[in-house]
Amino acid sequence: MKLQLALDRMTVAEAVETAGKAAAYVDWIEVGTSLIKQFGMASVKALKQAFPDKTIVADTKTFDNAKYEFEMSYDSGADIATVMGAAPMVSIEACAETAARRNKRVMIDLLHVPPSRFPDLFRFQDAIVCLHVGKDQQELAGEFQPFGAAEHLHPLYTSRGPKIAFAGGITEASIPRLASVRPDVVIVGSAIAKAPDPAAAAKSISESIKAIAGKEPKR
Amino acid sequence: MKLQLALDRMTVAEAVETAGKAAAYVDWIEVGTSLIKQFGMASVKALKQAFPDKTIVADTKTFDNAKYEFEMSYDSGADIATVMGAAPMVSIEACAETAARRNKRVMIDLLHVPPSRFPDLFRFQDAIVCLHVGKDQQELAGEFQPFGAAEHLHPLYTSRGPKIAFAGGITEASIPRLASVRPDVVIVGSAIAKAPDPAAAAKSISESIKAIAGKEPKR
Repeated sequence: MKLQLALDRMTVAEAVETAGKAAAYVDWIEVGTSLIKQFGMASVKALKQAFPDKTIVADTKTFDNAKYEFEMSYDSGADIATVMGAAPMVSIEACAETAARRNKRVMIDLLHVPPSRFPDLFRFQDAIVCLHVGKDQQELAGEFQPFGAAEHLHPLYTSRGPKIAFAGGITEASIPRLASVRPDVVIVGSAIAKAPDPAAAAKSISESIKAIAGKEPKR
Repeated sequence: MKLQLALDRMTVAEAVETAGKAAAYVDWIEVGTSLIKQFGMASVKALKQAFPDKTIVADTKTFDNAKYEFEMSYDSGADIATVMGAAPMVSIEACAETAARRNKRVMIDLLHVPPSRFPDLFRFQDAIVCLHVGKDQQELAGEFQPFGAAEHLHPLYTSRGPKIAFAGGITEASIPRLASVRPDVVIVGSAIAKAPDPAAAAKSISESIKAIAGKEPKR
């Protein structure tokens, strides 16, 4: 189970500094949408340059102009870029094709995607599919953590299916519940990035993840 | 009927130059999503600085973190920012609230939104609702111009409802068909920006729009 650190609502310098503190304990580093829209691809370049050995996720939240946005992200050092599951299928397909051609990966974000569409998205076997409760849903609507929607995923899990990521208000306290969700990637933002001691928070969450990793049901 | 020039897939310098050629004939200037994701808010600032008297549309395609993205866009000089109609309702509401508080506007992009959701989006009376066929749908799926979906909008048109924008592969040849769609804003990208002579193209399209403006059915 990989730990992905999401960096949002900060400057590029703060993102590099925060990631530096947590780097020993995280596997993947996400350049958040807010950084990309505020600072452009310079944010992706800066994180890849600072952490050349980490997997860098550009959270582009692509909805259209898929090939262009994915090429731009990969050219800037991203190993993975994201597309919204709510986007037109032709755009998601273009992301998957671009990823395959570049030997990179696509993460399909299920934010506000009805479960009826999940099967169509699970046919992208080389993708990572991300069950996601958004910031606004958490902060404004009081919806926390997509454990409920996970039940719609379970019937779709196969050994040949896409990898599963899980995002939305994850804290150390919620890690034990992840055993039933069986994600391949756990995405944590504020609980590390906004912690008084990001290194300690990342270490602690990383250890909690390792503690449940052996308990995942096989799929 | 306003003419909005969309600038995409170019550098900021090219965007300023292209907009400069067409400025006399266009009302609104859109900083395309590709510019924002590649160059960040610097692209919005550059266009507003170059054209302080034009309405600047930041095509942020917001899907989450709505208040943050809209504040950032308005702070950078945008008069209008965009949110996806496919986003969670709480995010769209946050965009509308931020726009109202800042005395700015929100454009709600109907790209890949099922018509069943249109009525929910038409309750944002101060918004601009944009019927939109995406670049990928045009270039990869051969779907051109959202005239078909327009029939779902007509029953929702009222004098107190949101303004209507229309985007997707519009060329001078398609302008006459707009009379039946009755948009308040016509968004044109490549047909001006990638024309051999952007000024001539903008002038010609602007005149075509004026020619049908008087023929719009009242609503």
